[in-house]
Amino acid sequence: MTPAIQDLYPEDFAHCFGCGRKNPAGHQLKSYVEGNEVVARFTPEPHHMAIPGFVYGGLLASLADCHAMATAAAAAEVAASRRIGDGPAPRFVTGALKVDYLKPTPLGQELEIRAHVKERSERKAVVAVTISAAGDVRVRAEAVAVRIPQTMIQS
Amino acid sequence: MTPAIQDLYPEDFAHCFGCGRKNPAGHQLKSYVEGNEVVARFTPEPHHMAIPGFVYGGLLASLADCHAMATAAAAAEVAASRRIGDGPAPRFVTGALKVDYLKPTPLGQELEIRAHVKERSERKAVVAVTISAAGDVRVRAEAVAVRIPQTMIQS
Repeated sequence: MTPAIQDLYPEDFAHCFGCGRKNPAGHQLKSYVEGNEVVARFTPEPHHMAIPGFVYGGLLASLADCHAMATAAAAAEVAASRRIGDGPAPRFVTGALKVDYLKPTPLGQELEIRAHVKERSERKAVVAVTISAAGDVRVRAEAVAVRIPQTMIQS
Repeated sequence: MTPAIQDLYPEDFAHCFGCGRKNPAGHQLKSYVEGNEVVARFTPEPHHMAIPGFVYGGLLASLADCHAMATAAAAAEVAASRRIGDGPAPRFVTGALKVDYLKPTPLGQELEIRAHVKERSERKAVVAVTISAAGDVRVRAEAVAVRIPQTMIQS
């Protein structure tokens, strides 16, 4: 099995609250390449609540966001004729995020997050994401991923 | 000073991870009516990081989300000829959320979140949100707030 995309982010970019392996207070989302899609599974904690019984929309936006950035990174590797795991994964940041909450998402079960790249250039990717619970799509999102600008890199 | 809108949500709807006063693990955002706008101030924790020096986009989406729902609640009270604080605040849930990350948001300082209702009906409101740091707008968001459906209320 290939490693999680987030586990291949360089050390300096591995502290993200949503998906950083080096952020013990964060969600530590892990996204994996599966065929032409990227898939993550995540079970929200009881405190990730919107109202009793349902998952907080801000968490769902966060999962879509980090998963989309990982999907853009995987696609950039493929475009460069590399595979995820061949080296450090390129790091993208979110330019825009649109989330449609189609149905309430029940709390207390594993969610499946799936994404694919709709279009991409060297600098940007548009990524489509779904979040499902019990086999039923609850959230549809689209993110614009942008290669991290040099101005955001602190050395 | 009027109370925070979230402090007027009924007990059963006060556990939201983003803004519930009864969720000790959550962000506990507090939004206040100021003239025709609703304003909140929030200082992210060091672990709310995207990459070193910058705030996590999923947190910014979460702040915009909860603040927009509070703004819709305040507007519903005004439309019903009540003021925030006259009674429990009506509870809205997020139908859709669009976030544009205009500029990176620096970590380590207070953010100002401002919102107003662009249009509303009895059932829905469209809310425009900005998030600023150091007087400079970093994030622009728009949320569709929907009055909580009966199917989401557990009794």
